[in-house]
Amino acid sequence: MRTDMMDEVNSASGAAHAALSPLDGAARAAAVLEARSVAIVGASADPGKIAGRPLAYMLSRGFVGKLFPVNPTRDQVQGLKSYPSLAAIGEPVDLAIVGTPAALVEDVVREGAAAGVKAFVVFSSGFSETGEEGAALQRRLGELARAQGVTILGPNCLGVANSATGLIASFTTALEETPIKQGGFAFVSQSGALGAYWMDICLRSGLGFSKWITTGNECDMDAASAIAYLADDPQTRVIGLYVEDIRDAEAFRRALRRAAEAGKPVIAIKAGRSQAGAAAAASHTGALAGDDALYDACLRQHGALRVDSLSQMMDVARLFLFDSVPQGGRLAVMSVSGGAGVLIADEAEGWGLELPALAPQTAEALAPVLPSFVKAANPLDLTGNVVQDTASISRALEAVARDPGNDAIVLFVGLMHSIATAFTDAIAHARQRTHRPIVVIWIGAKEESVAVLQQARIPVFRDIPPAVAALGGAVRLNGLRAAALAQPALPGRGPAAASAGKTLFLAEWDSKALLRGLGVAGIPAGVLVEGDLPGGLPAPLSYPVVAKLQASDVLHKSDIGGVVLGIADDEQLQTAVKRLRQIARDRGIDAMGILLESMQRFDHELLLGLRRDARFGPTLTLGRGGVEVELDPDVASRLLPLDAAGIQEMIGSLRCAKLLQGFRGRGAVDLTALAMQIAELCQAFMARSDLAEIEINPLAVGAGQAWVLDAVVSRYE
Amino acid sequence: MRTDMMDEVNSASGAAHAALSPLDGAARAAAVLEARSVAIVGASADPGKIAGRPLAYMLSRGFVGKLFPVNPTRDQVQGLKSYPSLAAIGEPVDLAIVGTPAALVEDVVREGAAAGVKAFVVFSSGFSETGEEGAALQRRLGELARAQGVTILGPNCLGVANSATGLIASFTTALEETPIKQGGFAFVSQSGALGAYWMDICLRSGLGFSKWITTGNECDMDAASAIAYLADDPQTRVIGLYVEDIRDAEAFRRALRRAAEAGKPVIAIKAGRSQAGAAAAASHTGALAGDDALYDACLRQHGALRVDSLSQMMDVARLFLFDSVPQGGRLAVMSVSGGAGVLIADEAEGWGLELPALAPQTAEALAPVLPSFVKAANPLDLTGNVVQDTASISRALEAVARDPGNDAIVLFVGLMHSIATAFTDAIAHARQRTHRPIVVIWIGAKEESVAVLQQARIPVFRDIPPAVAALGGAVRLNGLRAAALAQPALPGRGPAAASAGKTLFLAEWDSKALLRGLGVAGIPAGVLVEGDLPGGLPAPLSYPVVAKLQASDVLHKSDIGGVVLGIADDEQLQTAVKRLRQIARDRGIDAMGILLESMQRFDHELLLGLRRDARFGPTLTLGRGGVEVELDPDVASRLLPLDAAGIQEMIGSLRCAKLLQGFRGRGAVDLTALAMQIAELCQAFMARSDLAEIEINPLAVGAGQAWVLDAVVSRYE
Repeated sequence: MRTDMMDEVNSASGAAHAALSPLDGAARAAAVLEARSVAIVGASADPGKIAGRPLAYMLSRGFVGKLFPVNPTRDQVQGLKSYPSLAAIGEPVDLAIVGTPAALVEDVVREGAAAGVKAFVVFSSGFSETGEEGAALQRRLGELARAQGVTILGPNCLGVANSATGLIASFTTALEETPIKQGGFAFVSQSGALGAYWMDICLRSGLGFSKWITTGNECDMDAASAIAYLADDPQTRVIGLYVEDIRDAEAFRRALRRAAEAGKPVIAIKAGRSQAGAAAAASHTGALAGDDALYDACLRQHGALRVDSLSQMMDVARLFLFDSVPQGGRLAVMSVSGGAGVLIADEAEGWGLELPALAPQTAEALAPVLPSFVKAANPLDLTGNVVQDTASISRALEAVARDPGNDAIVLFVGLMHSIATAFTDAIAHARQRTHRPIVVIWIGAKEESVAVLQQARIPVFRDIPPAVAALGGAVRLNGLRAAALAQPALPGRGPAAASAGKTLFLAEWDSKALLRGLGVAGIPAGVLVEGDLPGGLPAPLSYPVVAKLQASDVLHKSDIGGVVLGIADDEQLQTAVKRLRQIARDRGIDAMGILLESMQRFDHELLLGLRRDARFGPTLTLGRGGVEVELDPDVASRLLPLDAAGIQEMIGSLRCAKLLQGFRGRGAVDLTALAMQIAELCQAFMARSDLAEIEINPLAVGAGQAWVLDAVVSRYE
Repeated sequence: MRTDMMDEVNSASGAAHAALSPLDGAARAAAVLEARSVAIVGASADPGKIAGRPLAYMLSRGFVGKLFPVNPTRDQVQGLKSYPSLAAIGEPVDLAIVGTPAALVEDVVREGAAAGVKAFVVFSSGFSETGEEGAALQRRLGELARAQGVTILGPNCLGVANSATGLIASFTTALEETPIKQGGFAFVSQSGALGAYWMDICLRSGLGFSKWITTGNECDMDAASAIAYLADDPQTRVIGLYVEDIRDAEAFRRALRRAAEAGKPVIAIKAGRSQAGAAAAASHTGALAGDDALYDACLRQHGALRVDSLSQMMDVARLFLFDSVPQGGRLAVMSVSGGAGVLIADEAEGWGLELPALAPQTAEALAPVLPSFVKAANPLDLTGNVVQDTASISRALEAVARDPGNDAIVLFVGLMHSIATAFTDAIAHARQRTHRPIVVIWIGAKEESVAVLQQARIPVFRDIPPAVAALGGAVRLNGLRAAALAQPALPGRGPAAASAGKTLFLAEWDSKALLRGLGVAGIPAGVLVEGDLPGGLPAPLSYPVVAKLQASDVLHKSDIGGVVLGIADDEQLQTAVKRLRQIARDRGIDAMGILLESMQRFDHELLLGLRRDARFGPTLTLGRGGVEVELDPDVASRLLPLDAAGIQEMIGSLRCAKLLQGFRGRGAVDLTALAMQIAELCQAFMARSDLAEIEINPLAVGAGQAWVLDAVVSRYE
């Protein structure tokens, strides 16, 4: 199993890596994380200094392996024998920690590799983050790693920690005061700072961690390697992720897929949503499927949940770590305050969670427990009566937990310190007896009540929105993961990367000819008119027709009046042709002619875009067409490959999906057939690496045929 | 000033109240909150019991007035002389606290009123919350208050607290452990439970409070009275609100207006968003302008911000209490981690906040402070360099705080405990010297750092989303308040309440005739055809025309095929008329005829709805018409009256506003003229209290005339 995965990841990690290094991504990460002998280059006697902290941490936290301070100026460092050089250690060393000035790092790696060091964690800054010179230094460092067959984490990283072995190859201050605690949560971060915050929150909240990996500038080992490793790490149950910039998208996708296959939820933060539309783009697809939209697609398509903050990441993770994720989205809400119950219902609706009615037998079981004037409903108002009748808490909880109609209970408590123990006992008891997940929201809870519940692995939240967001996020994550696993894995060789260089747009006439060649159906009958039209409408057209100016340098014809719709007779046709010619002359457009097409009946306008992204390769964008595209976009983007089922799910995610399924008298579109046609076009596009982009807008659909009313293709020059 | 306001509120508080009680709302609240002599009926010697707690609280918290336990079975209660009855006290008493069984409350009030007690806080439950019998008891209690000229708060309430006098007429457990602290934050809650949670959070967070009022079942004094009182309370700067059900909407509106005029931000929670669409409604307007949408409109139109949780309420309030609300939405983001800066920018975009570029002089001032490879940008990455150069923090903060292009600074810090003092000093210093609001986000902050900053009245948050939500919410609140104050106040007599009883729908033909009578322009020329059409198209129509079946019992004609569009000649006309007659026969519809209308050219379809709501009176709903209404509604609702400027703002709040302003070649609508026409129709509708509803759908607009293409009016029977 492990070997298969490694092969799979290996094939993904880029030709340059594969050719030079025998190590796949997961193995690179293992070389760092599972080190049992660690040398600290330039180790300092001062446990507060950057060069002193890793040693101090590992000594005080009981690292299970050997430690070798390397410092030619001292005999001993922090009580350990110090060595003058890596070579002088005289026995094999798994990992060297390097924090020397940037200019010296290459020498240290060379010396270490010669002495048999397998991996290096490089804290040193002064590389690509400082400009072109540093970037060149960094490239050389990466090449050195591959040439020597060693692994380098960093440079400019905060290192790693492994709670199972006590390895702390890091100078993070987040470990200064809090003892490390083992747990099932792992974190991979391209930012050291975010990594430190995560560690701080994780330890202070008592969650603990398995592995902690900050990848810094990623000259060699990257976030994808770390994820691939964690997917098979027996200590890791949930993977947190902070990414800024993925260089090898295919390796990243394979690693996410592996995590999904291993049943490990991935919860990711990706900064940069607000820069989404920043880059100007000539086509709609370019504008709609920007960098952030594709990161979003990449994460969701591989089953990862995107969240906005570390708090939300922790909240969702806690549900998974406590085995408290509902199987579905049906919640039973119980509350000591009617108002709070309604507020929970409000939040639940925003997350698409349901509050189904209680089963008749549940209502019956509740009747003797509740005050006479309270109705057994969902949300269920337990009322302040629980203070007098604490036994009712347990009975009510158990009755609701045995209701077959919900997947989890959300129990709201406020203050009630005098009966806090009755609550914690009843909750732990119900959880144990019924195995139904119980999520507690307790405003004003005492620390000791929270601690008791956490001990019983029951998640507690201090206000309503984060609790419901955690439930909603966890349920969504499971849904995304199931959908991701329903898609075929990436093929042996991934989608071709984007060609470099400039692109050239084809006029509609040429674009449609190319699409016909790709097997696209539904292109209306059309005639390109270059001269006059003495004989009236050419065969095989029939009125009404549309006339469209054709020129490769005019991308948006209608913006310049280059489209005349609804031409009904010969007279209107002559007028239209004259007008379009005039427009071309006035604007100095080198027109190739005028395209006449029979007009088609249809119900809805869609937009379809296929584009080769520099990072993610071929992508598909689908959305509502027409004026909506710019007004209030209703679009979805996905990375390819994607099968017809995935495309149908994608259409279903659009707000206009209801419209397409037949709405208020409009005809229903055969979405299965449409998805299959689109899937074929996707296949054809992937195979044609000379094509940069295909945009069909509008793609006119209705109860019958789908029509390619306008299209533009761009090719690499 | 105070007297004017009281008169205004008085006129709003409903005929029944006004006729029977000489007390206006604010005075009713003052009678309770400013009590200086308090009797506790049935006072218990046990300070832990409900009947013992108010006395114990006031004794230990130093109530400034006199306390009179009333308990015929004891000589002394909690060290004070006990009286056998209210009458036996023998001197005037401002307030009596009553927790006797429901059946005895009337007697206590009667006895107290006779003895000169001015106000009563009634804890007792067993009233409307328990069913019809309790509701009757409660109605009698309210009538008794008005007959006796006394004020009753409750029943079934948790009472009040006034931090200035130490009055604690409450048995809330939220005060058990925490000493009360004076502050500028007041809370009005229709739920005792939510009130208790608020108090707990408020005191534990160190914010303190001015007044705290839970109104319970509101037989007499209501939430509106409390708000009106707080609007002029000198100790109150910010008003928090939890409402479930407003009975006297006009008094509520006047009270919110008064708070806005007094410059006091109101932050409100209203539960029940998810029940918005629960009630079935015959018209679009009824479905779109449901109860929750109107509460939403009511709050926003009177300058109140609606939030989802107590946490968010506290966060927004803290910015106001600390004078840290930006004048506008322009933020300068400074961060010790580049990634965190981008995450802040992402959140800011979601709230419509901007991150403008730094001014050239700011960039110049920053140059010597920042590492050479860091660009002076917004967000500004201070980098980990600050650890080495702590002086740079202060210099960078001050440079950015003096930039004229931002309204506030968001400073992100993570951990950095070793230089925590450098941060807190620099922040407090910059705040003091530049008066620019600074909001701090500090992940992993130590309690002492937070305390120092709070002391300097600098808001601190522990993660990014709540901080940005607080800033966004506060800026939004100020915008809503300015817009609310730009609208004229409610007239002396408010909008007529909805008539009771059933409503009757008029067919389109009759509806349009009625609208013509109201002065509505843009109704297309139409002819009602009852018999055959031997002479072809009747004058003054011209082809193309539309034919529409007319019957008062068919509300959605097109759903049954009752509309034929685009009839181009006599033959099509005859066919259409025959088809519509057939439909009427087949469905047993008592048709009054067929309406023929000339078809109109237009660019956009809007929906306009006017409706008398049982709670809020006349309301206006505007939105995008056509299929969107049900697919993905883009609508806004407002309470009337609303002037043309308010209507134009309302149109501007629609997603389709961009479309109406002329988009991609479509003609721009004259929105000023359209708003004025709608304002006139609103006036006419308000004056016609026999009309329940007017729905114009579609209201077709374009560069020229606005057309009433279809309309339905309903009248009270």
